Amino acid sequence: MLTRPDVAVVGAGPVGLGIAWRCAARGLRVVVHDPAPGSGASHVAAGMLSPVAEAYFGEHELTGLLTESAARWPGFAAELAEAAGTDFGHRTEGTLVVGLTGDDLAEARRLWSYQQGLGLPITPLRPSELRDREPALAPRVRGGAVAPGDHQVDPRRLVAALRAAAERAGATLVPGAVARLTDVDARVTVVAAGCGAAALTGLPVRPVKGQVLRLRAPGRGTPDFRHVIRGYADGESVYLVPRAHGEVVLGATVEERADTEVTAGAVLRLLRAAVDLVPDLAEYDLVEAAAGLRPGTPDNAPILGPLPGRPGVLVATGHHRHGILLTPVTADLIAELVVTGTADPLLAPFAPDRFTAGAAARAAGRDRIAPTPEEETCN
Amino acid sequence: MLTRPDVAVVGAGPVGLGIAWRCAARGLRVVVHDPAPGSGASHVAAGMLSPVAEAYFGEHELTGLLTESAARWPGFAAELAEAAGTDFGHRTEGTLVVGLTGDDLAEARRLWSYQQGLGLPITPLRPSELRDREPALAPRVRGGAVAPGDHQVDPRRLVAALRAAAERAGATLVPGAVARLTDVDARVTVVAAGCGAAALTGLPVRPVKGQVLRLRAPGRGTPDFRHVIRGYADGESVYLVPRAHGEVVLGATVEERADTEVTAGAVLRLLRAAVDLVPDLAEYDLVEAAAGLRPGTPDNAPILGPLPGRPGVLVATGHHRHGILLTPVTADLIAELVVTGTADPLLAPFAPDRFTAGAAARAAGRDRIAPTPEEETCN
Repeated sequence: MLTRPDVAVVGAGPVGLGIAWRCAARGLRVVVHDPAPGSGASHVAAGMLSPVAEAYFGEHELTGLLTESAARWPGFAAELAEAAGTDFGHRTEGTLVVGLTGDDLAEARRLWSYQQGLGLPITPLRPSELRDREPALAPRVRGGAVAPGDHQVDPRRLVAALRAAAERAGATLVPGAVARLTDVDARVTVVAAGCGAAALTGLPVRPVKGQVLRLRAPGRGTPDFRHVIRGYADGESVYLVPRAHGEVVLGATVEERADTEVTAGAVLRLLRAAVDLVPDLAEYDLVEAAAGLRPGTPDNAPILGPLPGRPGVLVATGHHRHGILLTPVTADLIAELVVTGTADPLLAPFAPDRFTAGAAARAAGRDRIAPTPEEETCN
Repeated sequence: MLTRPDVAVVGAGPVGLGIAWRCAARGLRVVVHDPAPGSGASHVAAGMLSPVAEAYFGEHELTGLLTESAARWPGFAAELAEAAGTDFGHRTEGTLVVGLTGDDLAEARRLWSYQQGLGLPITPLRPSELRDREPALAPRVRGGAVAPGDHQVDPRRLVAALRAAAERAGATLVPGAVARLTDVDARVTVVAAGCGAAALTGLPVRPVKGQVLRLRAPGRGTPDFRHVIRGYADGESVYLVPRAHGEVVLGATVEERADTEVTAGAVLRLLRAAVDLVPDLAEYDLVEAAAGLRPGTPDNAPILGPLPGRPGVLVATGHHRHGILLTPVTADLIAELVVTGTADPLLAPFAPDRFTAGAAARAAGRDRIAPTPEEETCN
């Protein structure tokens, strides 16, 4: 590129590529820097689009953003399919939330009652209705509910589609890591580097390890169930995401650790819960076990907007468990901010400056002393 | 090779390479045919040398051969280490047999009482003695016994050492599969092709699937236990083999199937039993999950000796769960048979002609009709 780009995006995960696509489609000159596009959290993610089942106590503002992004997903998916010319496994069969034991069901019911109280679409089912919808569920599953608006997409195929759409719109991918923001020369820099945003910005983004398994139906048949199943099983929380081509994604642990090893205990807990909920999964092939690092933040919500004290630098990270669901709203609003310079009111609760006093202190500390071995980083 | 070899060995697993080494060391010209040396059952095997803990009801003659081969292992290992110039993880800490619940212990005790009745070295331990030997065992393990003469070796390194020793002694490895015995030109042909022996000889060798996991201690430390642990846990039978470099081999299923897929149910059962017996294993990394095919026979014993009706063809296959343990006695006695033409009396119970009436009928059938899809083969 001979001229200075309008926008440099650091990070080619779904968020970074979504922003790049939206900016390039509006006529901006865009470059995206990443040593290995799509190799971060999205590579391991299950791809649930769950604004309802992910609505937790005390996270009102996040729930609002999840709901807003879910509402944008159908249009976003249609535009992306058109722009990229490929499918990415967007499926709308809905999600079942189930409890294995009485205790599990009580825990699940407590959460879905909260979600109903917010006016979100989730409906309790009688056990017979549950089994009518998914006969593959174990007879001992005590009960559940359906969230018809909680859908899914295949994150690896989503990244491929977003990359194709961004490149077709004129964005350029530059392989290679960005060590410092001052190394980037563009009118606006967008840091969408997931966990890597911590080192680049000083913001409090920490790695939250997740372990995920991929199973495949015997003989590459279709999985025995069509809904996403989110289950509580003897106190263990798992989800089962049925895909085309016989794949079932089974996840996920949530661990405050920065390594990406697959551990025997996590695999055991995931498989035990999954087989307790859907016994036929025991006959499935185990084709992949992997771990990834989600970019977590102190309040579990993303960090979206201008980086204080750094004119021309925007941040879009900290999406934690919600990166795939939040891709449309993040891409739309950050592109709007780049083009117009004005932040949509939706972004206000997620502005980086809610952390900057602490971030400044941490950045100052980093200049003075070396990190201790105990200090977790996302690298 | 310009001159006709004295011996052609079909199959470069431990048995075939052991025979090749012994023959070459006695001055014979030896070739070994295999498209992928060491890629069969030995690649997945745990390498337990367990004549005592593997002594089962109704297998007197096999038990005698296991014991004979175990007695040869120390000398064989010393000679091989000298000849190959490498180590192969031969360890002599002994084996603990343990039961998790009262029922498990009763099952284990029934077998070790039988083994004691045969005069084999296995000694019950009080729970406190068991924990003194291996503090890593779960507090709920009810009891066990020690078989001090049941040792272990690393099969992958064993194959590498046998190959080096055979080649140093002058044997030649020829890559490529042997489709028919008539394609082999040698004074004596030895079929040591594991499951592949069925198609070459018509003998009743069938694949018995085994699934095995490999774990690694966190930070690549040493495993928390030194003995091989053979455990019964809620009716599941597993073994745990601690290796150098932090590896623990965890196996194995015994399935009458001919595929090599890793299944979710098998991984779940193995991990659950292992973690119940040694809880710290939950923190280990899961580094490999694999399946292999053991060459099984109708009486669970190997097939060793001349192939009836085929002068110049010897067979050494059907080692099932005992290929690594039986490598020394097989290599010694088959090499002796090749050189002298006389079969050691130890071989008599394992002669191929114990199956040949049936084998001839099967071979005739194979000439007339195509195999049905249901017919299992080792290929």
